[in-house]
Formats: sequence, structure tokens, C-alpha cells
Amino acid sequence: MIIVLKPSATEREIGHIVAKIKEAGLKSHISKGEERTIIGVVGDERALQSQPLLAFPGVEGVLPILAPYKLVSREFKKENTVLDVQGIQIGGKRLVMMAGPCSVEKQDLLSSIAQEVKEAGAVILRGGAFKPRTSPYAFQGLGEEGLEYLTEAKKKTGLLIITEIMDPRDMPMMMKHADIIQIGARNMQNFRLLAEVGSYNKPVMLKRGLSATIKEFLLSAEYIMAAGNSQVILCERGIRTFETATRNTLDLSAVPVIRELSHLPIIIDPSHAVGKTHLVAPMAKAAVAAGADGLIIEVHSNPEEAYCDGEQAMLPKDFKTLMAQLRRIAAAVDREL
Amino acid sequence: MIIVLKPSATEREIGHIVAKIKEAGLKSHISKGEERTIIGVVGDERALQSQPLLAFPGVEGVLPILAPYKLVSREFKKENTVLDVQGIQIGGKRLVMMAGPCSVEKQDLLSSIAQEVKEAGAVILRGGAFKPRTSPYAFQGLGEEGLEYLTEAKKKTGLLIITEIMDPRDMPMMMKHADIIQIGARNMQNFRLLAEVGSYNKPVMLKRGLSATIKEFLLSAEYIMAAGNSQVILCERGIRTFETATRNTLDLSAVPVIRELSHLPIIIDPSHAVGKTHLVAPMAKAAVAAGADGLIIEVHSNPEEAYCDGEQAMLPKDFKTLMAQLRRIAAAVDREL
Amino acid sequence: MIIVLKPSATEREIGHIVAKIKEAGLKSHISKGEERTIIGVVGDERALQSQPLLAFPGVEGVLPILAPYKLVSREFKKENTVLDVQGIQIGGKRLVMMAGPCSVEKQDLLSSIAQEVKEAGAVILRGGAFKPRTSPYAFQGLGEEGLEYLTEAKKKTGLLIITEIMDPRDMPMMMKHADIIQIGARNMQNFRLLAEVGSYNKPVMLKRGLSATIKEFLLSAEYIMAAGNSQVILCERGIRTFETATRNTLDLSAVPVIRELSHLPIIIDPSHAVGKTHLVAPMAKAAVAAGADGLIIEVHSNPEEAYCDGEQAMLPKDFKTLMAQLRRIAAAVDREL
Amino acid sequence: MIIVLKPSATEREIGHIVAKIKEAGLKSHISKGEERTIIGVVGDERALQSQPLLAFPGVEGVLPILAPYKLVSREFKKENTVLDVQGIQIGGKRLVMMAGPCSVEKQDLLSSIAQEVKEAGAVILRGGAFKPRTSPYAFQGLGEEGLEYLTEAKKKTGLLIITEIMDPRDMPMMMKHADIIQIGARNMQNFRLLAEVGSYNKPVMLKRGLSATIKEFLLSAEYIMAAGNSQVILCERGIRTFETATRNTLDLSAVPVIRELSHLPIIIDPSHAVGKTHLVAPMAKAAVAAGADGLIIEVHSNPEEAYCDGEQAMLPKDFKTLMAQLRRIAAAVDREL
Repeated sequence: MIIVLKPSATEREIGHIVAKIKEAGLKSHISKGEERTIIGVVGDERALQSQPLLAFPGVEGVLPILAPYKLVSREFKKENTVLDVQGIQIGGKRLVMMAGPCSVEKQDLLSSIAQEVKEAGAVILRGGAFKPRTSPYAFQGLGEEGLEYLTEAKKKTGLLIITEIMDPRDMPMMMKHADIIQIGARNMQNFRLLAEVGSYNKPVMLKRGLSATIKEFLLSAEYIMAAGNSQVILCERGIRTFETATRNTLDLSAVPVIRELSHLPIIIDPSHAVGKTHLVAPMAKAAVAAGADGLIIEVHSNPEEAYCDGEQAMLPKDFKTLMAQLRRIAAAVDREL
Repeated sequence: MIIVLKPSATEREIGHIVAKIKEAGLKSHISKGEERTIIGVVGDERALQSQPLLAFPGVEGVLPILAPYKLVSREFKKENTVLDVQGIQIGGKRLVMMAGPCSVEKQDLLSSIAQEVKEAGAVILRGGAFKPRTSPYAFQGLGEEGLEYLTEAKKKTGLLIITEIMDPRDMPMMMKHADIIQIGARNMQNFRLLAEVGSYNKPVMLKRGLSATIKEFLLSAEYIMAAGNSQVILCERGIRTFETATRNTLDLSAVPVIRELSHLPIIIDPSHAVGKTHLVAPMAKAAVAAGADGLIIEVHSNPEEAYCDGEQAMLPKDFKTLMAQLRRIAAAVDREL
Repeated sequence: MIIVLKPSATEREIGHIVAKIKEAGLKSHISKGEERTIIGVVGDERALQSQPLLAFPGVEGVLPILAPYKLVSREFKKENTVLDVQGIQIGGKRLVMMAGPCSVEKQDLLSSIAQEVKEAGAVILRGGAFKPRTSPYAFQGLGEEGLEYLTEAKKKTGLLIITEIMDPRDMPMMMKHADIIQIGARNMQNFRLLAEVGSYNKPVMLKRGLSATIKEFLLSAEYIMAAGNSQVILCERGIRTFETATRNTLDLSAVPVIRELSHLPIIIDPSHAVGKTHLVAPMAKAAVAAGADGLIIEVHSNPEEAYCDGEQAMLPKDFKTLMAQLRRIAAAVDREL
Repeated sequence: MIIVLKPSATEREIGHIVAKIKEAGLKSHISKGEERTIIGVVGDERALQSQPLLAFPGVEGVLPILAPYKLVSREFKKENTVLDVQGIQIGGKRLVMMAGPCSVEKQDLLSSIAQEVKEAGAVILRGGAFKPRTSPYAFQGLGEEGLEYLTEAKKKTGLLIITEIMDPRDMPMMMKHADIIQIGARNMQNFRLLAEVGSYNKPVMLKRGLSATIKEFLLSAEYIMAAGNSQVILCERGIRTFETATRNTLDLSAVPVIRELSHLPIIIDPSHAVGKTHLVAPMAKAAVAAGADGLIIEVHSNPEEAYCDGEQAMLPKDFKTLMAQLRRIAAAVDREL
């Protein structure tokens, strides 16, 4: 950590800061330049992380040197994390395809979509039983009944289940029905929920918040890992910008950026990012080329009747066509699908 | 609701859409222009709100006419809502001043800050016992012990207590200790938490999310009201933009915009918006001039030692000076303080 | 265009609006719903485009139905525009690769970089003689001397030249030296410059502004076409968001969105989007997979000594490696390179 | 400047960086921490400003310590700059009110609006003869004829004239007709235009770009001052964010932030910020309370017929009412109006 002092900083103020640094068990290294004096902090600056150094008299700025996260960092673990979820590798050479409806609606419909996405090559079935909806008047999900439909679809198809948790009180149900628990974008900084899922031994896919920086995204993943659960998958699903032509702006550069900073697998959700069916395929292709470890895509056999997000769901036949295209791109970047 | 059709839309596609509208209990009104055919939907369009009309063949765009919220709207209730919280009016002619430390730390310190802000003119004491922190390694709050400190400070000073809830499971504690429950920016779309606080009879101050539009903000307030709790206070606390000179960008235009759209009181939090002590006072003054119903300001008698957000806390003496300035501005806009 | 009236709108106010619509040569179509009356405008709404209808008493909102641009639109011209720039097709099946240094620095260096990018497969040489720099103290480009270096490099290699214009007064020089004139992101809404380049017969590549919506981007292209020059190429180069891990956020979804709205070719600039060399290749690959018509990439044989943007320039050998990877992806999406 | 090295940086790489720093006439100060080695640069780091240090092997990050601008900075000039424009002080205790129509339309209309805003207390008449319009089909301004109308209105009322320049070639006309030249938001980084107005002796009001950081805003002002013209006024007019309820988001915190960083006067344009007439007054009041040196407000006696931005223009009578309110707020913050 570098502490930049105001030109007006006095010796007494400097002494006061140095004392605080010492108190935290760290060393100071003072360097007087022509225009500014700076104090370099030697040692693990995380010890000072929550100190309001800007509130100290004489301080102009504080520049952290180290990343504020640890367990999720590439520095902590050099090699890529490859999760094994009941035989499915996530983060390995083979891309992972998750597909299914936005929300679980009817048992038959779900099972039939599951069958179709499986035939196209998906290995994980997505489907929300608890739905975070902007409006209280929109369909909120079937709840536990929806989870049971998912379990039934799993039995029929062998697909693993990924589904969203919205409330820490629902964790027992999730442990029973989900193979991967999803934390949605709106809950990325629901820290009590992060701590809760972190206390169980179950894979978690954490979605990036609408306006979360990558640093904040990794810190939320750190919450889960710090609570004891190291089976974390990251998911970029579009960020909020001024552009309104798409529902969100898919930040594909998050893939190489996160790859550099963290060892965790990265999945892309093109459906929520673009919000319109006909834009999903180009972004899915781009995601594979950018190096993502997998995709999560909304598929519905009758989007018109979908209870949720029908405007971004693909038909099973179009998903199948897309899978064929993705296989070619995966091969072109030395991955498998 | 207006449905704009593609130039290529067929009669069959139009018939299909019209049938769906009829099914929802509404009427269609078709208008063929030179370049586009449009369908006007007559009736309460909320019935179609979760219909993915964009997924229908032939549809180019869907333009809602009505606001998606109802109970929070000015149309639903013409006059301003003035809450009476144990004798303190929120939303009336007199501005409400909430002040105190970011987090509850020590009993003595809290009571002494409470005493000082009371003397300066604050009527509500703020202080977090549960703190949403970006990093899992930062101070997370004292929990129930912190709530007890708040109750003790209330006994000593008579100030009402506002404090943040992060987890629906903490509601019983909150009912015991808080006079106003705060829902923080990061939980603005924690819909299960909104529903939970909505099911109790207790005032709630809902903060706008970092990247929430005003429409989404009002929809989150609607969640609380739809669950039965109409004692809702809105709080603008800065939104996330590209600018990094301030912690967030205070969107003061939210005050007149919300005033037009909703009957609910609006509080401004300049401390979290700017993130630096010396910028708080100008924004507090601007907020009063813009027509806010009150302010919530961080005050700490020793910001250097604050466990949280010390870099944006004012000293009690500076808060007192600010209050004197705010009184003059309040008078200039025909309000009291 | 749909005009939504306030619930309080009077018959007189409605009559006043209808009269204005008639005056513009258009027809009104009034529809009284349960909660709102709306007026549909029949005819080319562009006639009303600059009318401040929101300023009319009784008006609550104005919803345009038609796109405000015409010549650039897919509706105006169904098939993709393929420009032929001295034998190089832009917008066709074969992707176009533009490469070279950020700024033109020395004759020898430029020619040697030109030779290397040509060998790797580039067909157009990029290099700025006039450089828009955030700071007045940064290198501003060699000016006309730089243009001459470019012409010399063209003679040696046969590569076409793309270079940026910043001032309408420089157009004669540009006509002499440039094969494609670039308008940079910061000048996307320098309307006098757009009109100036629009009045010549020379291909123009227009970069999207840092915070320009796609609609505004297309309107700026419309300025050039409306002035008579239909040889327009669009270039997405990253937009400004809250994220700071990358210089800008590359909005790759602009590719399919623009493809739907416009017939013009779309080039991606991954170098300026990400701002860091090691992130360029993944985004270049993603751009090809997303369907871009070509790329413009910064290449420098000694980035450390580059006068400008060295931190995002690739070495020629890395560019060559990238080209090999891009060829595989191009083939996987049925394009050539 | 602080250069943070990668954990893997070699002695050779460090030596290479140190040599480059020495070459720039500066000194290095190496500090080896437990997790990172950092190099402090001693001397005026602006000498290294355009060096792509990130491109050097072994470098992980570069943290500037000094602001990149100089002449505009508070450090360069401690006291506030108060411009004297023909007897009108800008930046002094008395606030400056600029008002008038968006665009100059007709001579009579302009003179009558001028008379009315003068009577209400404005001292400077605004009005555009050259209008930057998003669409090429919108009214582009009367050009020189408009400038003549402004001069005529000045003769009749004694108001000074502020009007926008869009093209460096128009400078001679501007010198003849304008008292203050305005550079609009879209041209904030039209660097050739900045340099041009910087080479004349005429006050310039520079508007902040839609997505310009305050640092970039000040660097654009630095362009003008570095070219020799020190009569610069800054104007905040709203930035682009995700919020669509207002045309832009007025960033009032820019007032105290700029006040700290720079000595230049700051004007607020609430009209363009909010884009809707009824929201202008609250923001104008907030601006005065926040400490702005003046306001620029759109006033039109017949907004319905305005050629441009009629939806945000106030009627003269409403402007007069606002002025009375602003005087009260100005007094409450010890300013005059």
C-alpha cells in the first residue's frame, strides 16, 4: 500500500500515520519526492484494509498494491481449478453446456425440454424454482414444487441440475435437489446468502452483479471460499451500461481478465446479457472464442408461453443448430464440446 | 401498451397476437400506418406484463404506456405520504435529520455520538449492527450486541433508531430494537428480504441500488407495500457511474423525479454518495435545496478509529456547523429543520 | 409515433396537438383507453422529429416508432454493403485485417512494421499522423510528415492506408494520402467534421463514441451518408462503463445489433477496447466469432518505445500467431481471412 | 509515480526500467516488500507520462501520484480565478446567470426573450447559431445570421453573449459576435478546436463531455490554457448514466470536487442535464446550494415552437419566479444574485 501525502502534511501528521502502520504490525518506508512525500507500507497490507487512512490528517490518497482477495486469486493457486461435479468436469478442456428454461413451469414441459437439450449436447439442466423478478406482480417461481420437477427431470435424463437460491432459509431444499446452486446477479452482494452457501459442501455458480466490478465479483467469490466452500464457478451475464439496444452489455473481456486474476472456471450467460433470442447465438459463439469454460443458455420449446424471459429463449431446434456451430469454434480454439 | 409490428408481419401473426390479448381480458386496437402496423392494447396492461410479447412472430417492439408499479405511485395516492414514527413526521414540512456512525462499535462511543448529534438537531440515530462489506475480511458488525447498544443509546437520548437488516432471519431482532429498518443498496433487489419486511408493521427505509433505475427502485418499494407494509421511505445514496472522483454519483434529480412519480418521502444520503468527508456538506446543502424530505449523515467523533467508512464521517462539531447552514437553506425553500 | 396523454389532458389540449400533427402533414389516430388516451401519428414521423411534443400541455410521453436514421438502415437497403476499396472488399465473405502502430513515428520503423503485418496477412496499414490525446502534453502526431511516411510505406508494401482526421481543414491532405479516413471515437459527434468527410468521395471508417448508443452511432453515420458519401464503415472500439480492469468495455453485441439495423460493414478494434496487449487476442477471436467484418489491431515492433498506446500494441510475431488462430475461427464461422 | 512489479520480475527487468527512468531525467527508489517490489519515481513524473511503462517486461501496474494537468490546478494557483468579462465578474461572490433560448431562431423573438431574462436578472444571453444535433435532419442553426441576431439583441439589452462554436474555421465570426465562446459537451475532446480557441484572447466556457471524467474535463481545459488563453470557465451539464428518467444525470458533486482540484469558475447547466422543464428549477436551486458560480438556463417564450430542445425550456415568467427563489438560496449560502 502506498500512502500519498498532501504537500502540506506536517512531520507530526507523518509520525501519526507511521505509528498507525506500526500498530498494525507493518513497516513504513518514507520517500520524499519533489512534489509529494509518500509512505510505502511493507508487509501484508490487508491488515490495514479497513483502516480509513483517508481520514488521517495529511493524507491525500491511498493506493493499494495487492488485490484484496486471496483464496480466489491466481497468485494463491497457479493452476486452473477444474471442478468435478458428479463426473462432469467444469473448467477443463471440454466446455460445459448448461441449458433449459428460465423458470420451471410444468413437469412435462420441463422433462421434454431437458430431453431435447440433452440430445443437443447439454450436460446440465437449468431452471428456476425461485425467481427474482423486478415486479412483485410477476411470476415468482413454483418454489419447492419446481425443485421436485427438476429432480424428476434429472431422473429421466441424467442431466445435472443448476437452480437459483434467493434466501438462506432455502438451503436445505437446495441441498436435496440441486447439483449446482446458482446465486443470481441481484444477490451477488447478498453477503449473508454468500456466507450461507459457503458453509455447505456443494458447487456454487456465482453470477456477476449488474454493476459489479471484476474486483467486487472476485471478492464475493472470496466470501464463499472464505466460509469453507471452494467449489465456486463464476458467471458473467452482462453488465448495466447506458446502451439500451440489448438488455445488458455482455462484458466478454471479463473472461481473459478473470483468467489472469483467478483460477476459478468462468461460464458465460449470453441469454440474460442480450435479452433477445436472435442475439444469443452470435454472443455464444464469441464467448467460446474468448475462452469461456462453458455457457448457460435459455431454451424453451414454446417461448410465447414461457412464464419468464420468453423473449430471450431459444427453441430446442435452434439450440441444436447452435451447438453444432459452437463445436466448430471450440475445435478452432483447441477445446472440446 | 403498444405493440409495434415488423413490416413483414402477416395477417395470421396479427391474429395470433390479438387472440393472446383477448385471452388476457383486454382489447386490441389495430392501426395501420404507412411504415408500420401497431396494435394498441386497451385495458389494464399489467395483465400482459409478464407475457413475452417480443417472442411472438411479427413483433418488432413493445412499448408499455403505464408504470409497472401501482401502490407507490402518485396516481394511486395524490397527496404526499407523511409517516408518523413515534411522533416524528417523515415527509412533512419539517426535514428529518438522521445521523450517527456507519457501524455500531462501542457502547460509550455510540452514546456520546448520539448525544452530540441530538444536540445538533438530529432526531434519528443511525448505526449498523450488521454491515454489508465488499470484503469478507472487513468488520461485519457486532450483530445483536450492536442492536442492544443502539437501544441503550435510544434510552439515554430519546433518539429513534434506524439500522440495517441483511437477512430475513434477523427480523425478530429488528422488531425489538429498530424504529426504522433500513434495507441497503446492495439488497434493494433482495426480493425475499423485501417481502419479509413487508409482512411486518414497521417503517422501512429502502435505499436505491447502485445501478437501479428509478423505475426499479419504485418496484422494489412496491414489493414492500404489496406485502402489506405501507410505511416506506425512499433513500437516494448515489449511483454507480464511470466517474471515480467520488465513491458514487449522487443523483439529486431523483428527488423531483420521484416526487412526480410517487407519494413516498425521499431521504438523501450524501455520505455514501461522495465517500469523502469534505464533500458531504455541499451535497447535503444541495439535497435540501432540491427538495429532499431529510438527510442521513455519517458522524463519528474519531473517524480515524472508525471500523467502517471513516473516510466519509463528519466530526460532531462539523455536523453542528452543517446543521446551522442547512437550517438557512431549509428556510429559503420554505421548509423547517 | 405514439403520443401518450396525461390522465388530466383536456379536449382542448388534445385538439391543439392534433392540429400540430396535421400542420406537419400527418394524420392523428386517437385511442381512449381506460387509464390513458393515446394519439397515434400516421405518416412519416420524421416530420415531427424536432417538434418538442413533450412541451405541449397534456402530453405525458412521446414514443417514436420508426428509427430516426434512414440511409444507413437495413430497411432502406436490404443487402449488406460491400465496399470495394481499390480491390479490397470490406463487408464481404473475406475478413479485412487492418494493423499497424498507433501513431506514425519514424519512416523506417513504419515501413518495417508494415512489411511484417503484410506478411502476417493484413491488407490495410493503420497509423495516426494526427493523434487525439487526452493531455496537451502528450505526443500529438507528426502531422503531414506522418502522412508522407504512410504513403511511402504504402509504396513499399502495397498496403492501403487508414489514418485519422481530426480537423476539417486537413481534408485536402487526407485526400492525397489516405485510402480510408478514420473518424475517431472522440469525434463521433463532431458534426462539422462528419459533414466535411461526407462531402468527399472517399471511404470513411467511423468509430463509435465512448458513450454513444448504437442509435446515435448510426445517426452519425447518417450524417456522412446524408452529405453524399455512402462509403461508410462502422467500428466498435469499446464503450465507457464503470469497469476499470479494461480501458473500455468491448461491446461485441453491437455486431449482431448493427447487422440487424444497418447494411454497413462493421469492424472491431480490440486494442483500444481492452487497452492491454495480453487481452487483445481473446477479444480479436471473439470478434471474428461474433460476425465482425474485420479487425483493426495495433502492432508495434518495439512497444516500449512507442510514442502512444504502447501498452496495448502487439509484437509482429504475436500478431502473426494471432492471425493463424483467427483463420481457424473464421473458417469455423464460414468466413475467410 | 509508483511502478508495481510482478512477483516474477527479474533483476534484469528492474534494471531496464530504472535505466528508462534515468533516461527521462528522474530518479528511482526501489522498495522490496514481502509480496511485491515497487519502484518510486522521484521528480516530475509528467516526463514519463506518455511512456508505456505497462509495456515493460516485469511491470504489473503503474500508479500516478501527481495530477496530469498543471495550469488549471489549484496547486498551480491557490486563489479562485475571477474572470472579468466586460465588467461582469465570473467566479466571484455574485452568481452569474446566463439565460436564453437553445437556438437563435428569429430576431424579434430573441430580442424579446433577451429583454425578459434581463429583467429577471440574467446578465448573459445564451443562444446557439450553430447547433450540434444528433440527427442530420434536425435544425442545425442559422449560422452567421444567428450570430448577427445575437449582436442585435446585445445592442438592445446590454446583455453579454455566449454562443457555441463547432468548427475552428468559425473563429473569426465568433471573435466578432461572442463575448464568451462555448464549447459543447460533444466537442470537449475536439482537441483541434480547443487549441484554436486557446490561441485567441476571448473567454471560453467548456462543457463537460457526456462521459468525461473530471480529470479528463480538466485536461481539456488545460489544452485551452496551454495554448495561451487563461480565461476558461467550466460547465457541468449532466453525464451519461444508465438512468433514463432524465436526459442526463446532473453530477453536482463535480462542484466541490472541481473546487478542490482547480481554481477555475464552475457553472451548472440544469436544463440539458434533466431535459424536462419541470425538473429544471429543483436542480437550479441545488446547484446554487452546492456552491456553483452561476447557472445557464434555457428560456423560451413559446417552447412549443422552439426549433430545438423546447421540452426543457422554461417560460420567462417561470424563470422570473425561479430567480426569486435562487436569490433566497444564494443568500443562505452567503452568495449574491
